[in-house]
Amino acid sequence: MNTLATLAQLRAFNQQAAFNRWAGIEITRAETGSAELSLAWRAEFGQYAGFMHAGMVGALIDTACGFAAATMAGRVLAVHYSVNCLRPAVGERFIARARVIKPGKTQVFTACELYAVQNGEEKLVATGETLLTPVGDGV
Amino acid sequence: MNTLATLAQLRAFNQQAAFNRWAGIEITRAETGSAELSLAWRAEFGQYAGFMHAGMVGALIDTACGFAAATMAGRVLAVHYSVNCLRPAVGERFIARARVIKPGKTQVFTACELYAVQNGEEKLVATGETLLTPVGDGV
Amino acid sequence: MNTLATLAQLRAFNQQAAFNRWAGIEITRAETGSAELSLAWRAEFGQYAGFMHAGMVGALIDTACGFAAATMAGRVLAVHYSVNCLRPAVGERFIARARVIKPGKTQVFTACELYAVQNGEEKLVATGETLLTPVGDGV
Amino acid sequence: MNTLATLAQLRAFNQQAAFNRWAGIEITRAETGSAELSLAWRAEFGQYAGFMHAGMVGALIDTACGFAAATMAGRVLAVHYSVNCLRPAVGERFIARARVIKPGKTQVFTACELYAVQNGEEKLVATGETLLTPVGDGV
Repeated sequence: MNTLATLAQLRAFNQQAAFNRWAGIEITRAETGSAELSLAWRAEFGQYAGFMHAGMVGALIDTACGFAAATMAGRVLAVHYSVNCLRPAVGERFIARARVIKPGKTQVFTACELYAVQNGEEKLVATGETLLTPVGDGV
Repeated sequence: MNTLATLAQLRAFNQQAAFNRWAGIEITRAETGSAELSLAWRAEFGQYAGFMHAGMVGALIDTACGFAAATMAGRVLAVHYSVNCLRPAVGERFIARARVIKPGKTQVFTACELYAVQNGEEKLVATGETLLTPVGDGV
Repeated sequence: MNTLATLAQLRAFNQQAAFNRWAGIEITRAETGSAELSLAWRAEFGQYAGFMHAGMVGALIDTACGFAAATMAGRVLAVHYSVNCLRPAVGERFIARARVIKPGKTQVFTACELYAVQNGEEKLVATGETLLTPVGDGV
Repeated sequence: MNTLATLAQLRAFNQQAAFNRWAGIEITRAETGSAELSLAWRAEFGQYAGFMHAGMVGALIDTACGFAAATMAGRVLAVHYSVNCLRPAVGERFIARARVIKPGKTQVFTACELYAVQNGEEKLVATGETLLTPVGDGV
């Protein structure tokens, strides 16, 4: 398995990703096997009815899973991910909490919950899973 | 089942979605049971290595599936979707082609292929599936 | 939402399913929103290398999810399910623990862990998710 | 990539799997990148309402995908699979047709359609996807 990525390294990865910078994704916590993201709502994340677009919901889940995997496996690439849209994703802020279910040399299994925060209350709006593959030290 | 959405209606739905406007998603084709999207590459869609972010890959797949479903079921919401990242998504343009696998009163099953276009050549970079639910005439 | 199914009703459902009787699935626990199954290993559950066949792994996950959903929604049918095969499924006994992530009138989201028991120790061998739809009182 | 498996080798793999022997799965066709299975209905495959159990539906999909993958990658193990239950799976016979979407050294992406045959007519009852990993020559 590759070198573990620290919180500082994850934040550097996060800044290297143009999409993450555009969205304003912040890494708020990371430990070996888990990571947490936070994103402030902006209108341009919306679908036709003004909820967060399912694509953005998935992007947050996939990104949080990637950082959770990176804490155990360094640089990773998503192979497969899936998203359950439980409720309309409406909030002032969104928090994604991901964890590694099982690490591995060629496959890292992760899972994530996405919460919308409104008036200080968290509500679970989506869950998801990502299967990632480590890319080696050279990438 | 709801009223079918025409290409003109799909384009109106597309313009109502702030995320789609930000990304610059265009609907290039729609028939009963299928839809095609096109997106010109921009740097802000990138992940750390400069490929299209898996979240954007999924957003295109989910969006194309939603439009394919809308041709048979009107307004829909994604319930679940999954994304297979087959190859690094690198191209000047991306084309998502989605189709309805099975329509239904409460569940519409769809599938999609995502192609990257580079130097006039299409390459399959991702596949995905979306399960959607019609939201009724009022939405 | 339909009437909740009690443990006794779940056991009756379980006996109505010929596949469950063939496999020897037992429902060991059920509360509102969760259910637990147990299955003793038999050689005919095996794939080529003698591990539990991924199809049986999925069958246990899907079945446990269905019973968890039934505790909140009565009779249900699986719409979609997915299975993560984390490790070779080898054991004397298998325990599947499923829970409802979110109930709903047309969609019930559930998740499940599958454990292999060997020499009294439980090991997580697979995880999965099932999306189910209630079928109404008449079924 | 490993050695390709021929139809004769696939049939030998099929006979090595106790579950496949119990079910009576037959491999009716295999080419590089695709495989077809056939299964005659038996009552013990049923769920509570007498349809084919979703677990059996998934087992056929996963098995067909595994054989399709084996035509390009030799011995494989399922890492992840998903199943869409489109219609009640009712028939005298079931045919699963799987194909490789993309082969790879550590990940083989496959997809499958499952048809129920009744009175000589095929009806699509389920679709699914399996992600597999080659296990090397030693297994």
